[in-house]
Amino acid sequence: MRKTSFIVADAGLTEVNVTRWHQGELSADQDRIAEETPIALIYNGISHVVMLATPQDLEDFALGFSLSEGILQDKSEFYGIEIIRQEQGIELHLEVATECFVKLKERRRNLAGRTGCGLCGAESLEQALPLPRKPALQASIHAVPGASFQAAFHAIKPLQALQLATGATHACAWVTADGEAQLVREDVGRHNAMDKLIGALAKLPPQNNGFVLTSSRASYEMVQKTAAAGYSILAAISAPTGLAVRMAEAYGVTLVGFLRDNQYVIYTHPQRIKN
Amino acid sequence: MRKTSFIVADAGLTEVNVTRWHQGELSADQDRIAEETPIALIYNGISHVVMLATPQDLEDFALGFSLSEGILQDKSEFYGIEIIRQEQGIELHLEVATECFVKLKERRRNLAGRTGCGLCGAESLEQALPLPRKPALQASIHAVPGASFQAAFHAIKPLQALQLATGATHACAWVTADGEAQLVREDVGRHNAMDKLIGALAKLPPQNNGFVLTSSRASYEMVQKTAAAGYSILAAISAPTGLAVRMAEAYGVTLVGFLRDNQYVIYTHPQRIKN
Repeated sequence: MRKTSFIVADAGLTEVNVTRWHQGELSADQDRIAEETPIALIYNGISHVVMLATPQDLEDFALGFSLSEGILQDKSEFYGIEIIRQEQGIELHLEVATECFVKLKERRRNLAGRTGCGLCGAESLEQALPLPRKPALQASIHAVPGASFQAAFHAIKPLQALQLATGATHACAWVTADGEAQLVREDVGRHNAMDKLIGALAKLPPQNNGFVLTSSRASYEMVQKTAAAGYSILAAISAPTGLAVRMAEAYGVTLVGFLRDNQYVIYTHPQRIKN
Repeated sequence: MRKTSFIVADAGLTEVNVTRWHQGELSADQDRIAEETPIALIYNGISHVVMLATPQDLEDFALGFSLSEGILQDKSEFYGIEIIRQEQGIELHLEVATECFVKLKERRRNLAGRTGCGLCGAESLEQALPLPRKPALQASIHAVPGASFQAAFHAIKPLQALQLATGATHACAWVTADGEAQLVREDVGRHNAMDKLIGALAKLPPQNNGFVLTSSRASYEMVQKTAAAGYSILAAISAPTGLAVRMAEAYGVTLVGFLRDNQYVIYTHPQRIKN
């Protein structure tokens, strides 16, 4: 087998030598690129899955992924993590509650013979779109002022350190009702950035007086993860997809899209946004 | 089980009623959103996988996905397709050569007990990053003039019909050496847009005197699909990731990124671009 030395990376970004084309002239230059690294998630010693993710905030990623996937129901079932760098990628060894591990083994037995791509092992339409593990959200107790989304739009940019350096990453943030971005996580994959944020939030006292902001588009899995984590508002800088809108409608999530300097679009459940 | 009526979609876009926030004022409005629909791929009667994709150019998608995944080695092994719209999504029934089907069943048996997320069923680092099925590409016979990338940057925009309507989709195009965008395919998922392009190209006489253009970032799977399809140049409007650069280097793919109005960056194998 050919040596696969090109897949090792354990920092968020790398400097590389490039050739730059500028108005017809070629010149040697340097560039900084964001990393995506194979990250294996191993539960109580058993390999579960390999994700491609930016190797930053890996404990948050492990915890958030486990919660989003329903492997853990609660942060208290997460006992600890060991991060081991291998030649081909990074192994995250999670220690979780025995009953979670038993359920995971059972789930894996039920999945025997299936492979998956894009939809986590689903091979038929019936399995493809599970409902979120938490019940549909109630109307939020707190309404968010409409101007807070604008404030968040401006607040998040200088906090996207990896994006500023590389131009290649998405960010997800938790923003308070008055528009302050309290937590930001970045990744080359928007779903990974979301899992990192969910993992980071799980370590804090529960809160729902605010919203989740993503620098990317709102695809169905961003709505699914928001709902599964129990948050009621998702705002996306870019467009939502049709499935994301229908999921947000059904799950009780307020979905904001095309968040721009002085406008945005509310696709579902606008009652949580006040003027 | 709750009725999942929100997952049906069989057109590229949908009109929805929205609330628009503009400089502090809320108003009712309409918006067009791009669709992502569960698409089941069924080979000779056996369900293989469900993908979320924009329901356009589905025959191209089925063929391109099958080639990218190595299920088919050649277009001649693809005998036909039936597209069946179900309540929960769309089924693509592919008729393929018996020997491909036998190999697919064998592969699925080997995958028994594994589930996957983001990396097609891989559960350990060793399985995560297979090499492309074609050997590393030789230096291209034809060098592409540097200015053709600029021409393509301008040529692709008016051809992105779904993107112009919704702002939510990626495009992949085949561009000739003189910068003409000959084929464009769109999807909410950039890897799906690439598979649709690869499927559409497979129906034409083979050609390598040009390049693949993507409106999105260049992640590792975009390089992998380009190389597996036998194309030697991939140009991305946005940034590449570190893994994409290392893969392109190893696979012999010329990787262009940050394609802008009057400049771009050549990350690997610049010898295929001439001034």
